[in-house]
Amino acid sequence: MRIAIDAMGGDHAPHEIVAGVLQAAKEWTDAELILVGDSARIEALMSERPGNVRVHHAGDVITADDEPGKAVRRKKDASMVVAGRLVREGEADAMISGGNTGALMVTGLLIVGRMEGVERPALAPMLPTMDGTGVLALDLGANMDASPEELLQYAIMGSIYRSKVQGIAKPRVGLLNIGTEAMKGNTLTKTAYGLLEQAPIQFVGNVEASQVMRGGCDVLVCDGFSGNVMLKAMEGTADAVFSTLKTEFTRTWMTKLAAAVMMPGLRQFKKKLDYKEHGGAPMLGLSGLVLKCHGSSDALAVKNAVRQARVALQSGLVQAIAAEINTRK
Amino acid sequence: MRIAIDAMGGDHAPHEIVAGVLQAAKEWTDAELILVGDSARIEALMSERPGNVRVHHAGDVITADDEPGKAVRRKKDASMVVAGRLVREGEADAMISGGNTGALMVTGLLIVGRMEGVERPALAPMLPTMDGTGVLALDLGANMDASPEELLQYAIMGSIYRSKVQGIAKPRVGLLNIGTEAMKGNTLTKTAYGLLEQAPIQFVGNVEASQVMRGGCDVLVCDGFSGNVMLKAMEGTADAVFSTLKTEFTRTWMTKLAAAVMMPGLRQFKKKLDYKEHGGAPMLGLSGLVLKCHGSSDALAVKNAVRQARVALQSGLVQAIAAEINTRK
Repeated sequence: MRIAIDAMGGDHAPHEIVAGVLQAAKEWTDAELILVGDSARIEALMSERPGNVRVHHAGDVITADDEPGKAVRRKKDASMVVAGRLVREGEADAMISGGNTGALMVTGLLIVGRMEGVERPALAPMLPTMDGTGVLALDLGANMDASPEELLQYAIMGSIYRSKVQGIAKPRVGLLNIGTEAMKGNTLTKTAYGLLEQAPIQFVGNVEASQVMRGGCDVLVCDGFSGNVMLKAMEGTADAVFSTLKTEFTRTWMTKLAAAVMMPGLRQFKKKLDYKEHGGAPMLGLSGLVLKCHGSSDALAVKNAVRQARVALQSGLVQAIAAEINTRK
Repeated sequence: MRIAIDAMGGDHAPHEIVAGVLQAAKEWTDAELILVGDSARIEALMSERPGNVRVHHAGDVITADDEPGKAVRRKKDASMVVAGRLVREGEADAMISGGNTGALMVTGLLIVGRMEGVERPALAPMLPTMDGTGVLALDLGANMDASPEELLQYAIMGSIYRSKVQGIAKPRVGLLNIGTEAMKGNTLTKTAYGLLEQAPIQFVGNVEASQVMRGGCDVLVCDGFSGNVMLKAMEGTADAVFSTLKTEFTRTWMTKLAAAVMMPGLRQFKKKLDYKEHGGAPMLGLSGLVLKCHGSSDALAVKNAVRQARVALQSGLVQAIAAEINTRK
């Protein structure tokens, strides 16, 4: 299997990307890893050169500030776009990037290409849950105005991912809604509920936003608008609580002492709450495998993303999703 | 002015309701307060009888478990329904209830009646903000599938309420969205954005769910589905953080000591986060004034709700909203 890695995407590119890829190459010798980007800069960082690492030159870079659509269309020689082209042309089986999320979505759609029968591919990150297992949520903001049929596809794709790549035999799929009863919600969720009941998944019904962090489902399905509202409400509330804690802790010398005792546990918890810490997010519904790793990824995170891509390729993820989508046409 | 109070609605009815009304009657002698409910039980609680308090008998009660629509239609003699009828028939200028929220919405719609030109009245509670000022949010779950025109009406009604009842000269109105740029969002918010820009309000643009608690607007407009998702995500995250804090605090004797130092401040903060603590929520867009006070209201909360109703009546809130809605037909 051949995995293309955008060496120029992310806050610590290219050095952490190159370092992570070198580690991964040594651990999984069955994978051919293709570093895509400025070959001079990449070569300079390669302290060693395992036989299964290759450099593919790309002269341009999409930055965090680039407007996604425009950047992908114009910067034809950007590392992210070139990595996508390798997948499209069958020269790589998967691509990984920690670059501009919007641009990666566009690269997935326009360069790698949609899977036949899928209207809207979705980015599916893991949200943290209290028990530490996490929930795969899709969609969290890529696609506005989803249709019930699109929510059904999200459910099927998410369920197959959790089972194939993460080994959950019967992933529990929940529908984000404002109440647990079947008839709750807006026109979208009410219609989607009926479709999900009939689908070849373990549908566990509606899940309220207040219950998402308590676990209860392995896949959470929602339209991009309300999913993004949920995600940002969670982030905003956690931020608000932690910033208040900080103020409380610095009030007197007694509270400062208390802080010294409490902080290690709290820091760990805060990290647990940060969904960006939870591995790479697959972009599901494309004709090839695209994995987003977080912009702040260090070498270890990059290595983990390679592991994830490798498992997904070995499991036949994309083919399994295509087969299921195909039977439903 | 005459204010009908549902004496049987809420966790501490009727005793706390009666006690709060007696306090309010003494403070505001210009208001005639009508206690609606089981007259025998109410009379038994009236240690004193100010001249401006009256009891209006109603033999039935809508409970928290009642199905709202059914209950309002069938329990014609329920205290909440009777209070609504007093407003409809001009025997009271406003009503207050701490009972079943859904049933109160139905009472507002079916008994008190919609204001001419308003498609969907909305319940508008205050959400807590970090600076303690709060933001009036509508709608948070009463109406699913709002139209852009309905969001515009929410904006106008909320803005008039904040200015008339809460004395904010130019309330800043924000639109809940997934990004701050004008072109962000789904079809609903994109269309609503254009309408809000033209409206006679101080529109401050899109507000992300992560920024709501940081203040920045006095009125937050959203459809009931995403508003409810936001509210529950906030509640769920706050609950999750506090329950983890509790676990962290009981880990060792050192952390237990830390907890003793920190808890008073944290409890106060948790209370600040609880939107239920933030006074009565008006139901806007009805032909009369309806105020929801929280189910757990004690005498002081009931007294504060009477104060709020009194200010709203003195300010001519309902007439001001009707005039503005009327000019836009």
